[in-house]
Amino acid sequence: MSEKEAEELLLELKEKAELMVDLAYSSVLYDNKEIAEEVYELEDFVDALNEELQKLAIKDVKSGELELNEGLAIIQLGSCSEAIADAARDIADVELRDVELHPVLRESIMEADEVFVRVRVAEDSVLTDKSIGEVKLASKTGMWIIAIKRNGKWIYDPNKYMKIMEGDVLFCKGTREGMEHFIALAKGEEKEI
Amino acid sequence: MSEKEAEELLLELKEKAELMVDLAYSSVLYDNKEIAEEVYELEDFVDALNEELQKLAIKDVKSGELELNEGLAIIQLGSCSEAIADAARDIADVELRDVELHPVLRESIMEADEVFVRVRVAEDSVLTDKSIGEVKLASKTGMWIIAIKRNGKWIYDPNKYMKIMEGDVLFCKGTREGMEHFIALAKGEEKEI
Repeated sequence: MSEKEAEELLLELKEKAELMVDLAYSSVLYDNKEIAEEVYELEDFVDALNEELQKLAIKDVKSGELELNEGLAIIQLGSCSEAIADAARDIADVELRDVELHPVLRESIMEADEVFVRVRVAEDSVLTDKSIGEVKLASKTGMWIIAIKRNGKWIYDPNKYMKIMEGDVLFCKGTREGMEHFIALAKGEEKEI
Repeated sequence: MSEKEAEELLLELKEKAELMVDLAYSSVLYDNKEIAEEVYELEDFVDALNEELQKLAIKDVKSGELELNEGLAIIQLGSCSEAIADAARDIADVELRDVELHPVLRESIMEADEVFVRVRVAEDSVLTDKSIGEVKLASKTGMWIIAIKRNGKWIYDPNKYMKIMEGDVLFCKGTREGMEHFIALAKGEEKEI
């Protein structure tokens, strides 16, 4: 089979589904319909990816390049990612249906061990004009960027080469213990990463 | 309503569902049926939690303490977590059905930005005899522990007061960039956290 293709498809499915869950919670927390709409768009993309993966798996079972139960495992793993993506869309739907969440419920999402943070990057932040990989954001602070709002435009799931710019609004996910340090860095209040 | 209760239930649902996804991927990666079985047990727990949450929401709508659409939002958020938990169970099912995953597929899970790591703690590791909170593992390395195997027993989702002990096998999730540093710390090869 085109193992490479199956590998890439499964990986992309898994990552997109997880990104969708993070974005969906962010959209609810920050009452942000644009993020919620991105979740909807990603869902169509994920559906298409999964269809492609399933066809590949069936083709490879047919040609004998995959055992039957290997093919089934691939299809099941793909379907799980799609189920997670569907759940993310339903979370985003809570935001899009204009339900004002009870503040206590909003807090319940905030109080998890994994937290969501939104912060604007200050001019004098040590992060300004550096790439995400350069500052080793994730391993130094335990936080990573799931979306950036820059000059009214959105960048979702930025890679490590993406530069952080002054005025960027960063939507991040991470661990509770790294949150305050990260916010202080973005605001320019702390200089040592 | 017992806002506190609804808050706690939703938070617990969300966290347990996410833990289940992490454990499920670990079980597939490390071909570990015990972890996969824990996922199954957690699923029953999540189902019960969700049922409790739904009853609470309906009761509070009936008594007028919640608006109808607030109640529906709570039910929808709870159902999303349950759907994610179901997907996790299906991933664990791939492991329990004894399908030998194609190594390329296993790698596809390993190559995501979020990685899973399994490592044994050495006697001379700086982590030995320290609590998870004390070493600030998550914010210092970008990795966190989802399960510990200690003397043949399992500890799932340990809190920050849990001490890391020599010989512990740590199952962790985290960012790719923090992985090597973390492994070196656990093995005692690096001493500075």
